[in-house]
Amino acid sequence: MAELQLLDIGPLDLDGGSTLPVTLAYRTWGRLNAARDNAVVVCHSLTGDADAATWWAPLIGAGKALDPDRHFIVCANLIGSCYGSTGPVSPRPDSGRAWQADFPDISVRDNVRAQQRLLRELGVARVELTIGGSLGGMLALEWAVLDPTVRRVVLVATSHAHSAWCIAWSEAQRQAITADPDWQGGFYAPDRPPAAGLAAARMMAMLSYRNPASFEERFGRTLQPAQPGIVTAPLENGEAKPLFAVQSYLHHQGSKLVERFDANSYIRLTRMANTHDVGAGRGGAEKVLASLEQDVLVVGITTDVLFPLAEQRTLARLLPKGTLRVLDSPHGHDAFLLEADRLEHLIRRWLGEPRPAAAHSTSSFSCAST
Amino acid sequence: MAELQLLDIGPLDLDGGSTLPVTLAYRTWGRLNAARDNAVVVCHSLTGDADAATWWAPLIGAGKALDPDRHFIVCANLIGSCYGSTGPVSPRPDSGRAWQADFPDISVRDNVRAQQRLLRELGVARVELTIGGSLGGMLALEWAVLDPTVRRVVLVATSHAHSAWCIAWSEAQRQAITADPDWQGGFYAPDRPPAAGLAAARMMAMLSYRNPASFEERFGRTLQPAQPGIVTAPLENGEAKPLFAVQSYLHHQGSKLVERFDANSYIRLTRMANTHDVGAGRGGAEKVLASLEQDVLVVGITTDVLFPLAEQRTLARLLPKGTLRVLDSPHGHDAFLLEADRLEHLIRRWLGEPRPAAAHSTSSFSCAST
Repeated sequence: MAELQLLDIGPLDLDGGSTLPVTLAYRTWGRLNAARDNAVVVCHSLTGDADAATWWAPLIGAGKALDPDRHFIVCANLIGSCYGSTGPVSPRPDSGRAWQADFPDISVRDNVRAQQRLLRELGVARVELTIGGSLGGMLALEWAVLDPTVRRVVLVATSHAHSAWCIAWSEAQRQAITADPDWQGGFYAPDRPPAAGLAAARMMAMLSYRNPASFEERFGRTLQPAQPGIVTAPLENGEAKPLFAVQSYLHHQGSKLVERFDANSYIRLTRMANTHDVGAGRGGAEKVLASLEQDVLVVGITTDVLFPLAEQRTLARLLPKGTLRVLDSPHGHDAFLLEADRLEHLIRRWLGEPRPAAAHSTSSFSCAST
Repeated sequence: MAELQLLDIGPLDLDGGSTLPVTLAYRTWGRLNAARDNAVVVCHSLTGDADAATWWAPLIGAGKALDPDRHFIVCANLIGSCYGSTGPVSPRPDSGRAWQADFPDISVRDNVRAQQRLLRELGVARVELTIGGSLGGMLALEWAVLDPTVRRVVLVATSHAHSAWCIAWSEAQRQAITADPDWQGGFYAPDRPPAAGLAAARMMAMLSYRNPASFEERFGRTLQPAQPGIVTAPLENGEAKPLFAVQSYLHHQGSKLVERFDANSYIRLTRMANTHDVGAGRGGAEKVLASLEQDVLVVGITTDVLFPLAEQRTLARLLPKGTLRVLDSPHGHDAFLLEADRLEHLIRRWLGEPRPAAAHSTSSFSCAST
């Protein structure tokens, strides 16, 4: 059942004002139960896709936190992405040509509304759990707001409103992309994307996903031979100078993303994250979060440079039934992927805990490493 | 006496193997005393210049830590920079045309050796103090190693070896510059520099210089009207969407640097920082640092994302007469400039402390904010 499937969910009225015909690409694991209330919605992050069982493998499986023997797990590719759902590489209904830079701005809420339609089509009556990390966590939170019948929520390394810091990171990355001449205002030839700019953006992003200590441990000042395609100054004898291993690593990460991701999607989805603010148009975040009745597990990572722990502390504090768990990891933001086994353990334990009867339980704080 | 002056210091044998005829641009404040031992060498950071009394104004003046009434203060522009000393914009001796990308790689040690010649020419017999922040701190430390007669050293927000993390930051910035078509392999027309790429690099750098909390306090999610030159998606009615204030701020910082700095200099000086390792070719950092007899004040900043406090702790610990002081500031790495008044107070107090007689005093730890 985990094959990529496509569903035309019809025209969607976007927050931006226009109407977009949407197809969602999604995968499912497990079966919907008779009560139709065992659905788990997994939300992917910026450059992720619908194949949650690959990028979050330790979380999904028999006996795991997300168990296909008990849950009906659904993961849909984001609108605006380039892995099957409607996005900048999709054809425009009017011309049949790809949207490219004309693709409308979409919001986190637009994406959640699209996923709500998908789940309805799949026969789901009530969602048992929404879960996501980073950008995925923003969707999981909006799910809880837009559908009060969602029972539980897990938010990992995320925030209730995209911070100035995160907006700044993404703006510098977009600047690197649009500085590439092959960007062409977003109407680049498919075989000539703004590769160097997108690579620079990814290199920058990798810094925000990791941490000084993890880089030091992994690379230090280790050198390696020069590589074609990485600019180094020639030595006196004309040979290229050696590279620091960390330089080579970054270029490798840049090249890998260029091969698998679309620059317009990168711009659209980072802009989408920028507009994330759960309180916008609803009287503010404090009010909205205070109104949520779901049990919410908020996971923060000790060394997260991009979404610092303070943001998850605030989020957990503002949720009436919020529980904060801290993942003590040296890997920074990416620990939500790199430490998925420890994350799974932590989520499974929380899912198994007895739920307090009172609506306003005290947030509990504990450290995953203890 | 603080006018910009030029001195031809003759050909310099570089660590890279070639020989470079060097002119230094420098400024001085105060007068050399009769004993010729009251010189203070101020070392500037990446995009700084010789005008220390401007960018470090609170440190320099009557009654300040660096006092022209008592000290002979010297600040030289770095070789490789673009503010008067020999660098990529200087003419090649053979052709008279600018070096541009053919400018040789230079090291921190090359720069210190050039400054040593300058001070000799100025009649200085012995250096009282070397001081610098960030890249400037790397020079101040190398000064202490290359000239054992230097009496005291102040190292702010720096490290004894450029970390993998810092190398990665600068590599992503260089990638943004070289992704700009106007880069032209480093041989761009003077009136057509790789402006967009250099702006992207600076925007990235600004992130490393600041901190999530400082961005949140200053910008939050505040919006402002769209600006020409900053790409935003048009609304349905064709008007440009509003910008986050932090986006506008970053673009402003990018544009400002493009107006005042050369892209080849940016590449050269970041590469220079990458090669900084006080222990290289000397049996390792621990050995070199243990051999230093100077009193050294090491200042770290609590919220420094680029040179985390752990690096200054290590540095102070490895120095026999190292003293760590912690500047508790929300401003990140840039606190070494933004909080120069508090830094001055801290340095002045340390300079006034009685020096321990023993060669191996215990490092002391205290917090500047207390």
